[in-house]
Amino acid sequence: MQDSSKESDMVTIGVVTVSDRASRGEYEDRGGPAIVAYLSDVLLTDWRPDTRIVSDDQPLIESVLRELADSGCPLIVTTGGTGPAVRDVTPEATEAVCERMMPGFGELMRKVSLEKVPTAILSRQTAGILGQSLIVNLPGQPKAIAECLDAVFPAVPWCIELIGGPVLETRPERLEAFRPRKK
Amino acid sequence: MQDSSKESDMVTIGVVTVSDRASRGEYEDRGGPAIVAYLSDVLLTDWRPDTRIVSDDQPLIESVLRELADSGCPLIVTTGGTGPAVRDVTPEATEAVCERMMPGFGELMRKVSLEKVPTAILSRQTAGILGQSLIVNLPGQPKAIAECLDAVFPAVPWCIELIGGPVLETRPERLEAFRPRKK
Amino acid sequence: MQDSSKESDMVTIGVVTVSDRASRGEYEDRGGPAIVAYLSDVLLTDWRPDTRIVSDDQPLIESVLRELADSGCPLIVTTGGTGPAVRDVTPEATEAVCERMMPGFGELMRKVSLEKVPTAILSRQTAGILGQSLIVNLPGQPKAIAECLDAVFPAVPWCIELIGGPVLETRPERLEAFRPRKK
Repeated sequence: MQDSSKESDMVTIGVVTVSDRASRGEYEDRGGPAIVAYLSDVLLTDWRPDTRIVSDDQPLIESVLRELADSGCPLIVTTGGTGPAVRDVTPEATEAVCERMMPGFGELMRKVSLEKVPTAILSRQTAGILGQSLIVNLPGQPKAIAECLDAVFPAVPWCIELIGGPVLETRPERLEAFRPRKK
Repeated sequence: MQDSSKESDMVTIGVVTVSDRASRGEYEDRGGPAIVAYLSDVLLTDWRPDTRIVSDDQPLIESVLRELADSGCPLIVTTGGTGPAVRDVTPEATEAVCERMMPGFGELMRKVSLEKVPTAILSRQTAGILGQSLIVNLPGQPKAIAECLDAVFPAVPWCIELIGGPVLETRPERLEAFRPRKK
Repeated sequence: MQDSSKESDMVTIGVVTVSDRASRGEYEDRGGPAIVAYLSDVLLTDWRPDTRIVSDDQPLIESVLRELADSGCPLIVTTGGTGPAVRDVTPEATEAVCERMMPGFGELMRKVSLEKVPTAILSRQTAGILGQSLIVNLPGQPKAIAECLDAVFPAVPWCIELIGGPVLETRPERLEAFRPRKK
């Protein structure tokens, strides 16, 4: 997140915290800030977050995802609501709004989390494409958020270009975005 | 499996062998007993199996899975019927009855089996949630059953608690159930 | 690909290049020839390719896949069209025609490609069964094609036998086909 005079070129990234307790203010949202901190650390491109906190309500999550995509976010990241419990519906909302799913994201994030905790297989997190937006589900725990983003983020800028979005540059010393055709 | 005076507290686990030949008595069921032996070895909690042997018939498998879930089994384990052959329909029956799928189980079980045989990728085994029951598809071979359960079972008790089921305790020297929030 | 007097016993393998540019002749197809070269190197069984080049048009891809399956190909391999871009619809066409999906193929191919490039997670490649045909999506790049086939091909002959197809023998010094029941 940087100040920029060329406001219109600034990229907006959707950051959606899905949590009944956080949405009622009973619980301080830690997932959303962890995502913003990660992206601020990694991105060189001017960007700003559009942060939302919603309850674990599928129609509500769907409408927030659609709204962020419509407003032009090339990337929308969610945190929370990916477990097996009946209130966990973030993957369902994601699948409902996306035109196509990207199974490789969930596979890799579960693999990486599994190196830490055996309960990583309980995460149903996924990713998909809605128009020109990539939507990625992340876990609720801040530590797990950074682990998952470290794994998948090198592929995110190229994915966004492939779906017609802007060029996202990363700080190469922190994280190298991979672009096959530039090789 | 242990005798218990508090019969009503005893957990029942569904064990479903899916096999045309075993259901016709042409073939001795080895998958079901392998699952029962594994669970007896690993579980400390009083439990009893509700074992079924059904043919590779999708409506029949579905009705058995629904019946075991309705009767209160927090865990239902199947063996057989997960290959690519036309009679293999256990994953289809599982997906048809479940409200939500748990892709991490199939991914991890295939990964573990792949370390043994390259044909592990032919297994379509999956897992899902039906009400307050976790349904997990296992392979047909007894040896592969134990390998798959060793991989996924550490996450099973926590999953069952997350969907509102009973606490399953394991023998820690044999297999440690992982519970993130107790950390 | 070998000459054979027993023409009727010869196995036909469908090789489908999915590419707008290759189908318009603006771009030389390199994926199809890479698949044919790979199979010629690996297969001992007499076979011939039925090669097709189609644009990234879902109904067209579906009709070619159905036609190749109807004509008796036990194996149909595609190259191209598996990325996240809006014109990439090969996985959608595959899923639309297949009676059952084989998730283990996509998981393993992405895992193997991920050892080379972080953007491997952007591939949505999958595999499935249509009648007595196994359909496998491969990437577009010749090098990635060989890497993916090296990973999954040991399981392909056994899969084809399980769905009622012919026996495919491989050159054991090049690639060993695995058949569990022969063990």
